[in-house]
Amino acid sequence: MGRAVVLLSGGADSATCLGAAVRDGYEIYALTIDYGQSHKIEIEMAKKQAEHFRVKEHLVLDIDLRRLAKSALTGSMEVPKGRGDNEIDSGIPSTYVPARNTIFLSLALGWAETVGTGDIFIGVNAVDYSGYPDCRPDFIESFENTARLATKMGVEHERELEIHTPLIHLSKGEIFKLGSGLGVDFSKTHSCYSPVGAKACGECDSCRLRLKGFADAGLKDPLEYK
Amino acid sequence: MGRAVVLLSGGADSATCLGAAVRDGYEIYALTIDYGQSHKIEIEMAKKQAEHFRVKEHLVLDIDLRRLAKSALTGSMEVPKGRGDNEIDSGIPSTYVPARNTIFLSLALGWAETVGTGDIFIGVNAVDYSGYPDCRPDFIESFENTARLATKMGVEHERELEIHTPLIHLSKGEIFKLGSGLGVDFSKTHSCYSPVGAKACGECDSCRLRLKGFADAGLKDPLEYK
Repeated sequence: MGRAVVLLSGGADSATCLGAAVRDGYEIYALTIDYGQSHKIEIEMAKKQAEHFRVKEHLVLDIDLRRLAKSALTGSMEVPKGRGDNEIDSGIPSTYVPARNTIFLSLALGWAETVGTGDIFIGVNAVDYSGYPDCRPDFIESFENTARLATKMGVEHERELEIHTPLIHLSKGEIFKLGSGLGVDFSKTHSCYSPVGAKACGECDSCRLRLKGFADAGLKDPLEYK
Repeated sequence: MGRAVVLLSGGADSATCLGAAVRDGYEIYALTIDYGQSHKIEIEMAKKQAEHFRVKEHLVLDIDLRRLAKSALTGSMEVPKGRGDNEIDSGIPSTYVPARNTIFLSLALGWAETVGTGDIFIGVNAVDYSGYPDCRPDFIESFENTARLATKMGVEHERELEIHTPLIHLSKGEIFKLGSGLGVDFSKTHSCYSPVGAKACGECDSCRLRLKGFADAGLKDPLEYK
């Protein structure tokens, strides 16, 4: 059985991505980055997902991105709320964290090389993707190329190095359907950018995309909203 | 005056790279990564270089790469010593840190976007480069392309995003000559992978390349060796 490093944020997308890697038969090395996000509950959810899917190893790595990356998600700006679909679709929002997926994939790459695999999974999604540039197929392909040039495994062994993105072409509705089929427990995921205690706000872009996704999938969201 | 983020390790190459960025007229945001390297003295030297060149801001960021990247430089293996030139030239050594420059450039990219610049400097060197794949021009070009696709500044503003590598085609001897001309104080740099107290070992690949470089440049290395 091959190994794979799976980036696991604790959100619904990364949980589904983990489910897809398990379905594909990989032994899982799950990597969660505690980057100082204001929605800390994500980390707890990542731990629950790792346990649920019985990963081989779950590494929670601290990097304080608040010191270098200005974003609504690291407390530098307000999280926007109550935006309509048109607004959500219009450009890159303040919740964008500069270079986040480049940083996360680089760390996953370092760990992958150490555990001896070229397979990395990330739950990015280019359909209902909130306008983040580092969720698009072009970015992923380019990173893959960079990773092949960057590493000993890429250079010495011409090893197949692949960034797997099982959700990239799915809508949120399709992601929830897929996740349900793969046994994801969505009560143990968290999407809200601005939770109120243990409850999701229901008003940020991420909550609105999640709620619409569950509705489109014809499923009930098990989370509590305020 | 434009801003630039400069990756500053505290070694001779990054100090010279910082000198080149200062010469080019940039306001400097120096970034040092404390990744759990066994040669901690580097961090102190980076602080001295930042002070010497009066950078605008110096950020020392902690990431414990020992938890994910196996390398002689993070204490997982022995640092090789007493190797001849042919051995130094033969393949990727155990001091290679998986994905290190990809991780460092990603963090520099995040900070660059936050401070509002597309200019990033890194002191990689493809001539006497110890066999690291992530020091080669191909890698740098590919990362540059990835960075353009990854970021808000790349996507929204078609901003010129450039990874500057002023040392990439220089020999170690040429680097020391350049650095001396730029006012680098090499007594405040550290290259040794395996220092004995405050003294350099003189036997690791990095010490050997440094000593050969100073000899080729016709300069005296101000460091103390054991």
